Amino acid sequence: MSLGTFYGMGVGPGDPELLTVKAASVLGRCPHVVVPKAKAEGGSVALEIAGRYVNDSATVHELVFPMTTDKAELSRSWKQSAQTIAALLETGADVCFLTLGDALVYSTYIYLLRELKQILPALKVITVPGITSFSAVAALTDFPLGEGKEPITIIPTADDLSAVRHAIQTGGTVVLMKIGKRLGDILDILEETGVIGDAVFVQRAGQPTQRVELDLRKLRGAEAEAGYLSVILIHVKL
Amino acid sequence: MSLGTFYGMGVGPGDPELLTVKAASVLGRCPHVVVPKAKAEGGSVALEIAGRYVNDSATVHELVFPMTTDKAELSRSWKQSAQTIAALLETGADVCFLTLGDALVYSTYIYLLRELKQILPALKVITVPGITSFSAVAALTDFPLGEGKEPITIIPTADDLSAVRHAIQTGGTVVLMKIGKRLGDILDILEETGVIGDAVFVQRAGQPTQRVELDLRKLRGAEAEAGYLSVILIHVKL
Repeated sequence: MSLGTFYGMGVGPGDPELLTVKAASVLGRCPHVVVPKAKAEGGSVALEIAGRYVNDSATVHELVFPMTTDKAELSRSWKQSAQTIAALLETGADVCFLTLGDALVYSTYIYLLRELKQILPALKVITVPGITSFSAVAALTDFPLGEGKEPITIIPTADDLSAVRHAIQTGGTVVLMKIGKRLGDILDILEETGVIGDAVFVQRAGQPTQRVELDLRKLRGAEAEAGYLSVILIHVKL
Repeated sequence: MSLGTFYGMGVGPGDPELLTVKAASVLGRCPHVVVPKAKAEGGSVALEIAGRYVNDSATVHELVFPMTTDKAELSRSWKQSAQTIAALLETGADVCFLTLGDALVYSTYIYLLRELKQILPALKVITVPGITSFSAVAALTDFPLGEGKEPITIIPTADDLSAVRHAIQTGGTVVLMKIGKRLGDILDILEETGVIGDAVFVQRAGQPTQRVELDLRKLRGAEAEAGYLSVILIHVKL
């Protein structure tokens, strides 16, 4: 029995129309669709976005990837999911794995793919890129993401405030992802460095509960509401 | 007469299937499609990529945006193009402007949009994000673009070698765009800093003449062949 092909696909940050034509077409014919979710009892955001493109006769497999920093637990969950997917591929059927945003930008897919290649070294993998949250945020706000000869620096978690300061010093465009509980600290840094007027904030870009804020001072007092899927773009003149 | 809507759309770096469902659907109904090209006598790469989605009865307008660093000439070409597009919008018809990659990542669209908003301050603009060249390169090579808490630094032109060195020192993933004539110098820096084994090179990602090179040492001797649409991804351990 030959192995099925494994497709890793970014579904974009929220708007179902931001899937690529390729992702939509692969999903339309793929018999097994694997979707990640954070909790056994919760839903999958990736499936909410891409569900309309899934073939009616496909089997959807929900796998839990816990939101934890415990390395042993993470590693166990990647291995377990890779084994589940490998078993499907060994039947000869193709399998799609869906992931938010782009498949290779701060995604569980990266770790899952490593495990899967260990189990099935001869596996054929096709990774389909997706629209990143920061491209979607730029489009929603008409904020130039990269301009002229200026660099773009992307900081994946606002937890590391020294990295945020370093990026602002470098200049150009700074992208802060996964703002979460750090919004208050970030606003302090933006004010201190004089760039708060050159920034935009978007939460859950393209999802029904999306929030766009062009004046970041208005976020004061509601710092606790910024969740994991929040992005800030900042322009720092060089 | 009310103004038409202006759509700025990224068509991705080369593979027609990497357009978004939204871009394909807007193109299918838009009566005016404006495409940029570098020379009056040449073709438009953006149109080659997206042509299959354009409505048969649409009018395609080719506008020349010269590849020059002469600011007066650039400014004149943006203004002129904005005036052409404004005249179409003033008839009440919708207009699509196509751009390679993502609409707001180092794109002429940024400058064109500024000019257009000056001419028509009340204009309704819908920017549709696109797959960036670096996301496509990452997918073609299964190269993690961003991982864990590491930053991504994007340098838009390899002309600025000190920016390249600075990004490598920062660590994480470094994206070098528009390599062009600097390939030899870049290879020297990658060798010097010991990261040449942790890099990939892709030229014209997704286009029929695409080249993928996973061992950058093999590019030695053919440095002159790397063109404008070349990308290098580097991983620098922190």
